[in-house]
Amino acid sequence: MDCGEGAQRQFVRHGLGLNREMVIAISHLHGDHVNGLLGLLQTMSMTQRLRKITIIAPSDLFRWLRFTMKILHIGLTFDINFIKAKSGLLFEGRDYRITAQRADHAIESYAYLFEELPRPGIFNPNKAKRLGIPMGEKWSRLQHGKRVVVAGKTFRPIDVLGPKRPGRKVGYSGDTRPSQRLARFFRGADILVFDSTFLSKDMEKALERMHSTALEAARLAKAAGVNRLVLTHFSARYRSVVRLLREAKAIFEDTVAAHDGLEIEVAYPES
Amino acid sequence: MDCGEGAQRQFVRHGLGLNREMVIAISHLHGDHVNGLLGLLQTMSMTQRLRKITIIAPSDLFRWLRFTMKILHIGLTFDINFIKAKSGLLFEGRDYRITAQRADHAIESYAYLFEELPRPGIFNPNKAKRLGIPMGEKWSRLQHGKRVVVAGKTFRPIDVLGPKRPGRKVGYSGDTRPSQRLARFFRGADILVFDSTFLSKDMEKALERMHSTALEAARLAKAAGVNRLVLTHFSARYRSVVRLLREAKAIFEDTVAAHDGLEIEVAYPES
Repeated sequence: MDCGEGAQRQFVRHGLGLNREMVIAISHLHGDHVNGLLGLLQTMSMTQRLRKITIIAPSDLFRWLRFTMKILHIGLTFDINFIKAKSGLLFEGRDYRITAQRADHAIESYAYLFEELPRPGIFNPNKAKRLGIPMGEKWSRLQHGKRVVVAGKTFRPIDVLGPKRPGRKVGYSGDTRPSQRLARFFRGADILVFDSTFLSKDMEKALERMHSTALEAARLAKAAGVNRLVLTHFSARYRSVVRLLREAKAIFEDTVAAHDGLEIEVAYPES
Repeated sequence: MDCGEGAQRQFVRHGLGLNREMVIAISHLHGDHVNGLLGLLQTMSMTQRLRKITIIAPSDLFRWLRFTMKILHIGLTFDINFIKAKSGLLFEGRDYRITAQRADHAIESYAYLFEELPRPGIFNPNKAKRLGIPMGEKWSRLQHGKRVVVAGKTFRPIDVLGPKRPGRKVGYSGDTRPSQRLARFFRGADILVFDSTFLSKDMEKALERMHSTALEAARLAKAAGVNRLVLTHFSARYRSVVRLLREAKAIFEDTVAAHDGLEIEVAYPES
């Protein structure tokens, strides 16, 4: 989600792996959300990445990347799958999908929702035994969603697995004013990372520059019924995030303030 | 000299000041020498810089900056004085000048020399007393290169100052193969920062990618009679710089390996 200056360095520092399956979703074309993209792509090329990478972004990004790669003599070792950002489902991988919703910022901007696809239900070994399916490779196949044949009879995963379990959802607002549309979009997210540029006392600036206050982020998190809120994109005018965090926690207790390298374990939602 | 990714962060970290007189000289248009420029210019704007900034670079950089500033909606609070890189004198400030020389790299590339203008000679107080010039403001004026009048008689700085003293010279190679041309260009530099991408054992790669080895950097430093050599731009293939440094020091003892945040006091040359 976005790619600010220094992203490649953080990637390497935190061992995220430059050759993994990857989708980069850019919320909008302001420098602080884009400036790290070139370096990240080049470093991936230096390390001989061959896997295709997917980039979701407002379409001008692709014009800019093409021009820039020409001027700066950048040749990549892998293909880029460009997807033009718009509201709706934009990408579906094997295990997850990414949808976007229009955000309200000074320029065209999108919020993103990363959703794991539902996971298979829990395997019921007693049921498998009762059906006469022998333990071992056949159990494993059923657990991985494949059919098996035992003594001429076909068994489907549904015969031995419980109901599908919901996957996890992570929402990211990018830079935006809060809106009903976004509250609906982030409904029930396990983690919501939301614009929290200003304190309420600087509300005028939030309106003028089309950002959110910590309080507004908290209200939206509450309205959307998310599990956990992560504040981010703090104005450099505040020496510490203590007051921003306090403002949000008064409304929505399970709030943390993002910082470089913050790691958050995303728990699976209860079925 | 060049502006790689993260330059703005290093600027702030080391207290270099975003509102100072500044000339940014870009050696060539590869991403690792340019990727930090946008962020640096934007952060200067965020901090309301008003002073003009000078950028020396191959001319395509200016096409790229114009296009990029449009696409990424970047408006600056200050003017940019663009100077197209070519061999010769490119910029003369009040106290220094910058000259360029063609380097030998895969694409159009320049080495730069930053030269302080000669400083005034040393003030001779005994001479001033003998000439009847009263101590105080008049001495100060003479020391600052201005004439004074005492009892109807005009005195010039030359009457009380020793011979002008040479300023300091700092050379920067950018990415390049070594050359006689560069050895002449860097003649007598107080500090020379030179491409040292490879060890001699990887000479083939140095030739293919048009970089220098540590040994070649040291030979050039010796031939140019510089005072001190700083190796930089190390290939990521070497886990440490120990061998690169050893290779150079065998030829040119006063060599250091650059690292993030390295500070070097540049001594004035002896008159």
